[in-house]
Amino acid sequence: LSGASVEGEVAFFRTGGTVLALWSREALAEDANIDSEGSGFSGFALAHNVAQKEEVDAVLEEAVSAGGTVVREARDVFFGRNGYFADPEGYLWEVAWNPGFPLAEDGTIRLPD
Amino acid sequence: LSGASVEGEVAFFRTGGTVLALWSREALAEDANIDSEGSGFSGFALAHNVAQKEEVDAVLEEAVSAGGTVVREARDVFFGRNGYFADPEGYLWEVAWNPGFPLAEDGTIRLPD
Repeated sequence: LSGASVEGEVAFFRTGGTVLALWSREALAEDANIDSEGSGFSGFALAHNVAQKEEVDAVLEEAVSAGGTVVREARDVFFGRNGYFADPEGYLWEVAWNPGFPLAEDGTIRLPD
Repeated sequence: LSGASVEGEVAFFRTGGTVLALWSREALAEDANIDSEGSGFSGFALAHNVAQKEEVDAVLEEAVSAGGTVVREARDVFFGRNGYFADPEGYLWEVAWNPGFPLAEDGTIRLPD
């Protein structure tokens, strides 16, 4: 969490060299000059990649403890293992272990060239 | 664009230490075990931060040339300057110049502590 955040308004998180900025749905719609109405699948997911296979299950459990809802239980898939949860505001998160995309020590992802 | 991409299926882009993965709405919904139906505002935007104020207008023009639609014309705001466009699939993008969040030489953002 960065000190640039404003309590009750916006939270900025460092995520590698990019930024995850959380603020209200209404404020974003107003800033973008569009209607804030919308329903159903949003067409995107935030993904949290982990370094060890077992962490997929552990992170999903942690999300549930924090108020999330599992929508896809952890399972082995062709690239490794993943699962999905929805946070209390309905945003979709993937938790993934993909040994083909190794994590650096600082948690950043190294894509193949 | 990473060589891990699969033509016609998924495109992986390096974005700092994180990854932007583009694949079909239906494939993501199926992977997440949810219904792919949805409409209206998705509740999120991808932001492209630029180093110079004038680049906000230039990137919006470039987006329009590539098939995007401006939904918020570039304007000066309290943190700098921004504008928004929708890509051909309706995804919302912000183009922002925020001198309080300077860019490193490699384009990554440096948040205040």
